[in-house]
Amino acid sequence: MSAIEIPFNKPYLTGKETAYIVEAVQSGKISGNGLFTQKCHRFFEEKYGFKKVLLTTSCTDALEMAAILANIQPGDEVIVPSYTFVSSALAFVRQGAKIIFADSYSDNPNIDATQIESLITPKTKAIVPVHYAGVACDMDIIMELATRYNLLVIEDAAQAIDAYYKGQPLGTIGHLAAFSFHETKNIIAGEGGMLAINDERFLKRAETIWEKGTNRAEFFRGEINKYGWVDIGSSFLPSEIISAFLYAQLENMEDIQQKRTSLWNYYHEKLSPLAAQGFIQLPAVPNYSTNNAHLFYLICHSINDRESLIKQLKENGILAVFHYLSLHSSPFYTAQHDGRLLSNSDCFSDCLVRLPLFYELTFGDIDKITTLIEQIYP
Amino acid sequence: MSAIEIPFNKPYLTGKETAYIVEAVQSGKISGNGLFTQKCHRFFEEKYGFKKVLLTTSCTDALEMAAILANIQPGDEVIVPSYTFVSSALAFVRQGAKIIFADSYSDNPNIDATQIESLITPKTKAIVPVHYAGVACDMDIIMELATRYNLLVIEDAAQAIDAYYKGQPLGTIGHLAAFSFHETKNIIAGEGGMLAINDERFLKRAETIWEKGTNRAEFFRGEINKYGWVDIGSSFLPSEIISAFLYAQLENMEDIQQKRTSLWNYYHEKLSPLAAQGFIQLPAVPNYSTNNAHLFYLICHSINDRESLIKQLKENGILAVFHYLSLHSSPFYTAQHDGRLLSNSDCFSDCLVRLPLFYELTFGDIDKITTLIEQIYP
Ligand SMILES: Cc1ncc(COP(=O)(O)O)c(/C=N/[C@@H]2[C@H](O)[C@@H](O)[C@@H](OP(=O)(O)OP(=O)(O)OC[C@H]3O[C@@H](n4cc(C)c(=O)[nH]c4=O)C[C@@H]3O)O[C@@H]2C)c1O
Ligand SMILES: Cc1ncc(COP(=O)(O)O)c(/C=N/[C@@H]2[C@H](O)[C@@H](O)[C@@H](OP(=O)(O)OP(=O)(O)OC[C@H]3O[C@@H](n4cc(C)c(=O)[nH]c4=O)C[C@@H]3O)O[C@@H]2C)c1O
Repeated sequence: MSAIEIPFNKPYLTGKETAYIVEAVQSGKISGNGLFTQKCHRFFEEKYGFKKVLLTTSCTDALEMAAILANIQPGDEVIVPSYTFVSSALAFVRQGAKIIFADSYSDNPNIDATQIESLITPKTKAIVPVHYAGVACDMDIIMELATRYNLLVIEDAAQAIDAYYKGQPLGTIGHLAAFSFHETKNIIAGEGGMLAINDERFLKRAETIWEKGTNRAEFFRGEINKYGWVDIGSSFLPSEIISAFLYAQLENMEDIQQKRTSLWNYYHEKLSPLAAQGFIQLPAVPNYSTNNAHLFYLICHSINDRESLIKQLKENGILAVFHYLSLHSSPFYTAQHDGRLLSNSDCFSDCLVRLPLFYELTFGDIDKITTLIEQIYP
Repeated sequence: MSAIEIPFNKPYLTGKETAYIVEAVQSGKISGNGLFTQKCHRFFEEKYGFKKVLLTTSCTDALEMAAILANIQPGDEVIVPSYTFVSSALAFVRQGAKIIFADSYSDNPNIDATQIESLITPKTKAIVPVHYAGVACDMDIIMELATRYNLLVIEDAAQAIDAYYKGQPLGTIGHLAAFSFHETKNIIAGEGGMLAINDERFLKRAETIWEKGTNRAEFFRGEINKYGWVDIGSSFLPSEIISAFLYAQLENMEDIQQKRTSLWNYYHEKLSPLAAQGFIQLPAVPNYSTNNAHLFYLICHSINDRESLIKQLKENGILAVFHYLSLHSSPFYTAQHDGRLLSNSDCFSDCLVRLPLFYELTFGDIDKITTLIEQIYP
């Protein structure tokens, strides 16, 4: 096996990250909810129109906050696609939820919105659409069901920063939404996340849960003269070191998004002939969705095809990776799943492969990768 | 009110923090469990002899991991001092525990170990000694009770880095222990924490719970060929940006500890005459404990005395602060508390005041602070 020349992902410094970290330290406050956290909050609230956002230590933690705010109790049911990262389900399981797994569309890994209604029972409390690869789920159908059955919609927008559904920013449509700044995402802090709150009912409690179940935020705004323990919660707020790093990334978001989009488009252009010949399938972006160029993936014909592709790329120094493993048949959940076949989810689990895509990837790298793929398919 | 000249706390850069952050980014991996996380783990395991440690996003999160590992179920009882930060109890409440609050000693805010046995019932699962101000709880008594009643001991060592009980490092004595790197602590990362695991039964599961209930750590060690969902958990692991910052601090730990100790001793020396005259009470360090110079606090005679002291210091540009509010009478828990009076805890809540103590504080600053205090007490 040759050394890796083109990694799957590579984090990128936009320039001001460390200067902002020093500035945070010099300001005298680097625990959570300091200057840079507030700058990040304002950035998101102003740019996308969220009622309120709160940075978190991960998207997983933002989903946990959502599960607490949704008041999920043992036995409550939450509808989640099976083709997603563990956290989309785990955060609700931690509150005692039973997960009802839904299948994907056949041509798109997102939750098949037309199947959701058949999964709703009197115990259903929430639906969790995951915008896979930053491509929007069909939110009109989902929001209509939520209204009709009085359910909450929690968007897993881990991959969906700066992506839109019929012109509306993803994460502003459901009652709550969770974003990720994990190193594999478009905008990064290594590990990091954000809860977006669109439903006013949750504004006040979210702040309390975020700060270890205390009314500390009110205290620091001078509204009360000491703070205390008033609710459940956790330490969901990130260090200012994370927020300062993140803020530098946010200031360069347009540049990052443009660069990723041009790389994504180049991949698409170069691989279209192979797709037209039926050797591989390229990502489908429905017309109600934009593409935020989060992932470039291919669908192979079989798991063997995919393993062989990954192997041959690796032999040429290129790291391509699979994911996710259908959660309904995971060791943790298989005994609790009701036995429905979720064959589209299983198909993406077996056949989807992600190609390198990061800011410092070059068009030359893509030429090398796509030329190799062309050689593999005769 | 005059401007603040001497803050209560001020975070401090030891020098290499930002260089290490750049190094982490350049290494190509800044999500959790990277190079710097592993360096921090090795540092702690080698220096103090923990079986294993895992960095977390906060001490609160480390305590939550401990609560999950201890398999706390709804209705289980956990014994926690009332005089502590919310998280010492909250992390167990999140797993459904009923908290049985214990009182402090009269001359030391730590849990009164001689009272614990009377609080044990068949439902008791764990004891949480909090080493307040880095001063050790009486661990012999607590560990003997744990053995006799088959309980787990989870040390809240948030403030107890580099502190010892009869020569043993705090955090190595209980079955599990949690540390904090919050900005107010000796060693900081803004927000951050660490779980220490001393009981071998918990080694494997801890790693899974840390990485979102997956066996990802095994996958990255090459032990399995894909990772999946196998347990509950959360995203407890911090960004490499945090670990890189922390590692720079750890490399300077001796210097930091020496500096803080000299400042602490100087405070003690300067304020001893006032204490001898009975105006104030100084921290008591039992002979079984070392002093890691985490906090310098005074005990006033009454809440009015304390408020007046804080006010007069503030008028002179010095920020001194109180804490904690007895948790048994917090808005969240008062209805669930069994009505026992915990008068020592209440007394520390009312009368304890913390004076500025941080690396860049000078002896001149302490002269100014102690001279003012001398003037306040006639
Ligand atoms: C034993 C123990 N176990 C677990 C953990 C969890 O660790 P993680 O954070 O890593 O998860 C901790 C952490 N505690 C730290 C601090 O020690 C704690 O003091 C407080 O710090 P703050 O940022 O709030 O600042 P401050 O300077 O302590 O106070 C600022 C003002 O607030 C007023 N006040 C204060 C309190 C406390 C309170 O209840 N009510 C209240 O009205 C006093 C002042 O004027 O909270 C922190 C998280 C711990 O100590
Ligand atoms: C929708 C959604 N919702 C919520 C969240 C939570 O966000 P937070 O992290 O902020 O809390 C996420 C986050 N997910 C990201 C990544 O998207 C995800 O891919 C994976 O990334 P990794 O670091 O593991 O690296 P990788 O490069 O994805 O894979 C590396 C190798 O691992 C193999 N693999 C992979 C998987 C996934 C799996 O199950 N099994 C498995 O054997 C494939 C490779 O060879 O995990 C991350 C946390 C999400 O996507």
